[in-house]
Amino acid sequence: MPHTSTEHEVLAVVFQVGDAHSRKPALNVLLWQRALEPERGKWSLPGGRLRADEDLTSSVRRQLAEKVDVREIAHLEQLAVFSDPGRAPGVRTIASTFLGLVPSVASPELPPDTRWHPVSDLPEMAFDHRPMVEYARTRLVAKLSYTNIGFALTPKEFALSTLRDIYGAALGYQVDATNLQRVLARRGVITPTGTTAHPGRSGGRPAALYRFTDSQLRVTDEFAALRPPG
Amino acid sequence: MPHTSTEHEVLAVVFQVGDAHSRKPALNVLLWQRALEPERGKWSLPGGRLRADEDLTSSVRRQLAEKVDVREIAHLEQLAVFSDPGRAPGVRTIASTFLGLVPSVASPELPPDTRWHPVSDLPEMAFDHRPMVEYARTRLVAKLSYTNIGFALTPKEFALSTLRDIYGAALGYQVDATNLQRVLARRGVITPTGTTAHPGRSGGRPAALYRFTDSQLRVTDEFAALRPPG
Repeated sequence: MPHTSTEHEVLAVVFQVGDAHSRKPALNVLLWQRALEPERGKWSLPGGRLRADEDLTSSVRRQLAEKVDVREIAHLEQLAVFSDPGRAPGVRTIASTFLGLVPSVASPELPPDTRWHPVSDLPEMAFDHRPMVEYARTRLVAKLSYTNIGFALTPKEFALSTLRDIYGAALGYQVDATNLQRVLARRGVITPTGTTAHPGRSGGRPAALYRFTDSQLRVTDEFAALRPPG
Repeated sequence: MPHTSTEHEVLAVVFQVGDAHSRKPALNVLLWQRALEPERGKWSLPGGRLRADEDLTSSVRRQLAEKVDVREIAHLEQLAVFSDPGRAPGVRTIASTFLGLVPSVASPELPPDTRWHPVSDLPEMAFDHRPMVEYARTRLVAKLSYTNIGFALTPKEFALSTLRDIYGAALGYQVDATNLQRVLARRGVITPTGTTAHPGRSGGRPAALYRFTDSQLRVTDEFAALRPPG
């Protein structure tokens, strides 16, 4: 049976909702610009080769630490493996991808080659990194509907208007704050904190604040018929 | 930076609900018994080394074909990568795992070293294959609650009592047929065929038959607030 040794790399798609690029919040992804060939000048996902003494999760955390303060990453999970034999030049390299989420209030320091880019307007990207971003976005959109994953994109406490803006940016279309509140509160995903925001410059009634009930990922759609007994 | 070449293998956790081992349907997993060292006599997941000219999905399909008629596999998806440096002896080997599902009516021919084993009573397993089965089961249980993945475990048409038995076996606890029908029909996951089953030997009223509306995986819990416009 023909088979060859392979290299293995880990690559992270790190998302944050922010308004660095426009006045409207947008979903951004962390990219660095390649200074050397191959694909010099194009933008890459953070990551690199798996070392002999580490597993994938240790590896992605180590490599992200070179780009960003990893304590800012509120959620990290494995995505798909990209294994097309021709996906990159040279020695065959299989890529395991991860999804990382950074809350919208965090503003991690970035090295000079690294920048947030809006997912809706990506620059020219290296190798197969663009489909990896698309894959990660699809996973995030799906998980927003059946899990509490929003906890990793929001500040600890937030007004409903902030939550609506973050969901809207992540999903790519506007959502209604009242519907969102109704569904998430009924499922126990968000909880009122009992406090209100300081009134903004626009004056008006101070907004009630909410928080995510949990800060660990869980499926929120375990409907009654499928819940385990007891 | 220390790093080494690695081997890459694919391993499939193939589930089927069947009653081969008892009169009650149970969730079974396809395993083969190792004839050679290492771990001789222990039971393994089907799979093996990735070849130079194939991606993971082609590889797992090729390798499953040696154990089972792959046309019987109604759903196949990537699971996690198992990458602990000490997970198996010899050259470092990273394992990408897949979840495969076979409908309960299919009875694929198996080679002599291969057998279905109930997930609730696994034999002694090789390497880290047992946690892979547990990981796959957890994924299946979660997906039963927010997707239509049941289509890949059931016959094309089924009575509600059959559906209840299959869900119960996959989940590991009893579910109520009426609740199950109510939730799945409301979400459009199952549709009545308009026909009934031939009355069984027990006589009684012939049971209404249902089918899954789709036979491609989709998230069924896209709640209204998060549905895209239009």
